Amino acid sequence: MAANSRFAVAVHVVMALAHRGEEWMSSEAIARSVNTNPVVVRRIVGALGRSRLVRSQPGKAGGVQLARQAEQISLLDIFRAIEGQGVFAFAPKPGNPHCPVGCNMKRLLEPIFEDSQRALERSLSRTTIADLIMALPA
Amino acid sequence: MAANSRFAVAVHVVMALAHRGEEWMSSEAIARSVNTNPVVVRRIVGALGRSRLVRSQPGKAGGVQLARQAEQISLLDIFRAIEGQGVFAFAPKPGNPHCPVGCNMKRLLEPIFEDSQRALERSLSRTTIADLIMALPA
Repeated sequence: MAANSRFAVAVHVVMALAHRGEEWMSSEAIARSVNTNPVVVRRIVGALGRSRLVRSQPGKAGGVQLARQAEQISLLDIFRAIEGQGVFAFAPKPGNPHCPVGCNMKRLLEPIFEDSQRALERSLSRTTIADLIMALPA
Repeated sequence: MAANSRFAVAVHVVMALAHRGEEWMSSEAIARSVNTNPVVVRRIVGALGRSRLVRSQPGKAGGVQLARQAEQISLLDIFRAIEGQGVFAFAPKPGNPHCPVGCNMKRLLEPIFEDSQRALERSLSRTTIADLIMALPA
């Protein structure tokens, strides 16, 4: 699965949990809603748990549930939990220090990348999981 | 190389070509500036060529050069050439049609993904390669 469909799947996982309310939901039940593999769901639940968006309880009566109200989970919260590193990255090796372009690339691009990332994040921050649940047909 | 550092490398390739002016530049010379492998450069040059941002000429005296003025190449043009599919994607399998969440996910998320992508694109469209070249130290 490409990095960028992971976010859509993660939103789906959180929506499924929000829809279920306070019941604990198993990875298998979540996977059936998302129509994917429980292993994929567990990996995403792990990332969401590290950002304290969901909590897990082991055992037969356990499962996963939201750790916050749906009103308090924005799409940006989920994006950050899943795509921690941001949209843009620089190559691991820096440019050639003897090249006038290479040695200035990071300084020139970093503020632009930050600005673009912020624009994307502002847009994602405007929608909460509660907004999406409200938009489901009754 | 992750998909997201490819964009930074592509900007670097275009900057190196713009800096060189009307000379044809070999993949090897570009690779030395970017500090990467000529194979990586050729793959990026291929994508840039398909979007008509650069042109190539085979042979010993050949190489790569910009196909447009640096004023007419924005970071968005490069982003689109390299990351054709956009930042977000849906999983290849649709959600479970019997699940009230699963069967509405795409309809709910698509406009938000489009809006976020547009915000990112608007930000990238504001900077041209000429702007970056002007910002290089003399």
